[in-house]
Amino acid sequence: MIQTKQPRNKEKILEATISVLNGTGYLCLTIEGIAAEAGVGKATIYRWWPTKSHLVLDAFLMVTESAFPFDLNDSIKNNFVEQLKNLADVFSTTLGRSMLAIIVEDKGISDAFYTSYLSLRRNDSAAFLRQAMEREGIEAEVNIDILLDMLFGPIYFRILIYKQTPDERFISELVDHVIAGILPACSGK
Amino acid sequence: MIQTKQPRNKEKILEATISVLNGTGYLCLTIEGIAAEAGVGKATIYRWWPTKSHLVLDAFLMVTESAFPFDLNDSIKNNFVEQLKNLADVFSTTLGRSMLAIIVEDKGISDAFYTSYLSLRRNDSAAFLRQAMEREGIEAEVNIDILLDMLFGPIYFRILIYKQTPDERFISELVDHVIAGILPACSGK
Repeated sequence: MIQTKQPRNKEKILEATISVLNGTGYLCLTIEGIAAEAGVGKATIYRWWPTKSHLVLDAFLMVTESAFPFDLNDSIKNNFVEQLKNLADVFSTTLGRSMLAIIVEDKGISDAFYTSYLSLRRNDSAAFLRQAMEREGIEAEVNIDILLDMLFGPIYFRILIYKQTPDERFISELVDHVIAGILPACSGK
Repeated sequence: MIQTKQPRNKEKILEATISVLNGTGYLCLTIEGIAAEAGVGKATIYRWWPTKSHLVLDAFLMVTESAFPFDLNDSIKNNFVEQLKNLADVFSTTLGRSMLAIIVEDKGISDAFYTSYLSLRRNDSAAFLRQAMEREGIEAEVNIDILLDMLFGPIYFRILIYKQTPDERFISELVDHVIAGILPACSGK
């Protein structure tokens, strides 16, 4: 939520959101419950967040804003294994799964999720990948956007459709396979 | 729905489900509305399908059961471009999007979707890929499961999270990139 003015108790309210959410799940989450947990009035919450889905989005953004940054001193593989493990961990929490369910159902929140989280992470990933490929002398004709989909797509897919959290072994093999695709091929077919 | 006995009007009821769904969307879909459209009693429907989500699942299975089969006389690329186009088309319909929303929310239907649709399609895809790689003399050390995630994951991801239907150009580039990963690499890194 990009605003010049911020609610005075923003962090307390968002921490309360996560705490209550962990107890009730998203369906039974209520603004009343969050207000009680945070020790603020409902009016205070409604002033800044129109619905509980907006609170979940902001709680999600708060939790993920200090996530693992890219490290140009480390390999492409290690960087993306960390990023994907981080992503899998985040989306295996009640907060993360609630966020996914809301995104799938709600176009407005989905747009906000894209603007405030996904597009920023994609830009960081793309910038890192370009710099790392240049540094390692990889001159493959690749579509960075598609490469990122091949890395992130399976994680979202496994969590949303298979209802499984990809483990480190899966993630490591996935990154290996994607990277294999950007190394020059000996024989074209 | 694998049963020895089938409802006499099964196809008519499922066609009615799709027809009403296209008009109302999933939220406002009702068994009453479907019964009226199909010209059957509600009791007939409830006897075979406990909820509207079960009707949507069966309608989805009916629509997708005669989907494009794999063709060993054609290239790996052409086969998967057709499969992914088919998948993207199916999930861009109201029926397909409703199916996705239900899968994300409902563990029971998600399990049924896996058993009746996803696992069968995965098995077909894996069998085709193994045979095709053998025929083309590709001996890459690949994890077929992960390759399939790299192909299908981005399609589900784009539809569910970006709310976009991948077009043929995207699909073609995606398949190219995945296939590039199973060709032998000249220089390892």
